[in-house]
Amino acid sequence: MESTVEQKQKWEDLVLESFVNIVKSPDGDFTAIGQLAQLINDDNNFAVMVDFLSNQKQCKEAFVNRPRLGNVDLQKLSQLPQNTLGCNYAKHMIKNNLTPLQVTSVQNDSQFLNAHLGETHDIWHIVTGFDTSIIGEIELQSFCAEQLHCSRFFVSLLTKNLLKTIVYDIEKSHQYLEAIARGWLMAKQAQPLFGVQWNTLWDLPLEKIRRDFNIKIDER
Amino acid sequence: MESTVEQKQKWEDLVLESFVNIVKSPDGDFTAIGQLAQLINDDNNFAVMVDFLSNQKQCKEAFVNRPRLGNVDLQKLSQLPQNTLGCNYAKHMIKNNLTPLQVTSVQNDSQFLNAHLGETHDIWHIVTGFDTSIIGEIELQSFCAEQLHCSRFFVSLLTKNLLKTIVYDIEKSHQYLEAIARGWLMAKQAQPLFGVQWNTLWDLPLEKIRRDFNIKIDER
Repeated sequence: MESTVEQKQKWEDLVLESFVNIVKSPDGDFTAIGQLAQLINDDNNFAVMVDFLSNQKQCKEAFVNRPRLGNVDLQKLSQLPQNTLGCNYAKHMIKNNLTPLQVTSVQNDSQFLNAHLGETHDIWHIVTGFDTSIIGEIELQSFCAEQLHCSRFFVSLLTKNLLKTIVYDIEKSHQYLEAIARGWLMAKQAQPLFGVQWNTLWDLPLEKIRRDFNIKIDER
Repeated sequence: MESTVEQKQKWEDLVLESFVNIVKSPDGDFTAIGQLAQLINDDNNFAVMVDFLSNQKQCKEAFVNRPRLGNVDLQKLSQLPQNTLGCNYAKHMIKNNLTPLQVTSVQNDSQFLNAHLGETHDIWHIVTGFDTSIIGEIELQSFCAEQLHCSRFFVSLLTKNLLKTIVYDIEKSHQYLEAIARGWLMAKQAQPLFGVQWNTLWDLPLEKIRRDFNIKIDER
């Protein structure tokens, strides 16, 4: 039988190996991302995030109420006025050929955390104004890393993106680090986006939501 | 004979291997850092930095005048008034048991860039106020990455520090990313520290130097 030390060592080696794989894969290779995620999203990391988030009222309540997005009718949302969250979200999803994640039931805080982050990720894109280009994704990864305090998943995505610039194109590193700083600062100033019952806000103007959450979009 | 593609592939594999090694080494392991530096500090990366820096007057002039630090008498500097750059630098060096790098002659812009950055690194610590703790080092690495535009060396140090949190202690990631954002913002606001003839400024008050370079030290 393996000792805990041996198991830990094996896990560390697997994580590093998985990093080497993901760096060699093209941006947005979901198989490589999925393999890394499976390895690094461990119970302990989720538990630490749940603990941290529980210090904030809205997030703490979310672990009690477990707000879920439910079924989303993109066609219906896209008929809402153009300035609403719902219309902007629907257009983003349709334009990027994305479908809302299927609703799955959750049994505990970690499962809720994971499901909630997954199903609201594209809403975070809309509310923060960070697009789905590699720069927009890095900005949002940094935003998530700040607001979730120590998400091994989002820190890993940031790190593999930096590692890619080192190996393949160092001239990109400046705009990547700029994106990290920008996402980080926005997240620090903003109210938490975790734990929001977003499907009650579809018909509100996006500008009002950004004001309410203190999301400050700077000029580029 | 190896093709260019095969050589590039081999280099990429060596860089990733070197990253795995440095992540497994303790913080401040200069052997592992040296091995990585030797691999990644290539002529092309230096050339791109020289090009970028040459767009700024002070830096452009530095490639002509090649200001060097020369011999530094720490005991003498430590006798200067306590508020001076020289006294603060000397005390920092003595306290950390550091000796100024030996002067070596340089033959071209890349060699000057490398020598200048090496011999003034601890002056950058003093002027920015970033200490030699791991957090202070990350703040300064980020500052350097911003001001040098695309230094593969400094981006590598930042990346290996993030990778270490992923493998060994994810709870440190928040303060590491906070340090990256802080160093980055200070560097963006500040005048370039590259190319300064620092040994003419020893007897100036540190506060004046920080004002002149627009270095804004925030409260922690």
